[in-house]
Amino acid sequence: MDAMHDYNPFELRPIATVQSPLTDLMSAPKQAHEGAPQAWLNFDPTVLDGLDALRVGDRVIVLTWLHRADRDVLVVHPRGDVANPLQGVFSTRSPARPNPIGLHEVQILEIDGARVRVDALEALDGTPVVDVKPVLRRV
Amino acid sequence: MDAMHDYNPFELRPIATVQSPLTDLMSAPKQAHEGAPQAWLNFDPTVLDGLDALRVGDRVIVLTWLHRADRDVLVVHPRGDVANPLQGVFSTRSPARPNPIGLHEVQILEIDGARVRVDALEALDGTPVVDVKPVLRRV
Repeated sequence: MDAMHDYNPFELRPIATVQSPLTDLMSAPKQAHEGAPQAWLNFDPTVLDGLDALRVGDRVIVLTWLHRADRDVLVVHPRGDVANPLQGVFSTRSPARPNPIGLHEVQILEIDGARVRVDALEALDGTPVVDVKPVLRRV
Repeated sequence: MDAMHDYNPFELRPIATVQSPLTDLMSAPKQAHEGAPQAWLNFDPTVLDGLDALRVGDRVIVLTWLHRADRDVLVVHPRGDVANPLQGVFSTRSPARPNPIGLHEVQILEIDGARVRVDALEALDGTPVVDVKPVLRRV
């Protein structure tokens, strides 16, 4: 796929940062329903207009950039357990992958200016946020 | 992939490219269930090991980089209809947003080496793919 080398590099611009009691990679829950704490998303003032229609109670998908992940990994032991056979990363939710984007479905609990509090987020303190999208339900 | 260490830490690295009959931005469906066609994802040979556990029938989330989107937009008329009041992009699925990452839940129909055919994808031909993740269902 030589054409791929013609792409310009694509740089993400963080729009917010996670403020969370989670600071230890090894003890962090792997999924939100495994005991993840509430967290604040502290948005950059330059993107405030993008938040204007978000409401308390909304369910949204937060996209993070898992900046501590190893981007050279293509196979992992699922859930970091060596008892699980090695498996390609694209069939796992491992943070280790070529583009370590995390997807987190959360509910908004509070909106305070450029700060948004969410109910359960399995991302470490300081993790950059790169997007927020509404959860779509087909009608 | 040793060269990856030279990358800007916030730089996305395309892993595949969408091959689709969709070539016209204006006529493309906005959501997969609005008539999106089947598409092939043509993976870069360097990431093949990451695909090894994907199977026909799997439901996965494809993350694209909507490279034609306007990244300076923070408010939009939802669905591009000026009859809809302007709204912050983070409560819409508009491609226009600071980091135009597309989320697409699809089913795998065929795997042919580095090519994966999926059932319905509302992304234009040539769109870069940046990640593939399994759909998680809580047990």
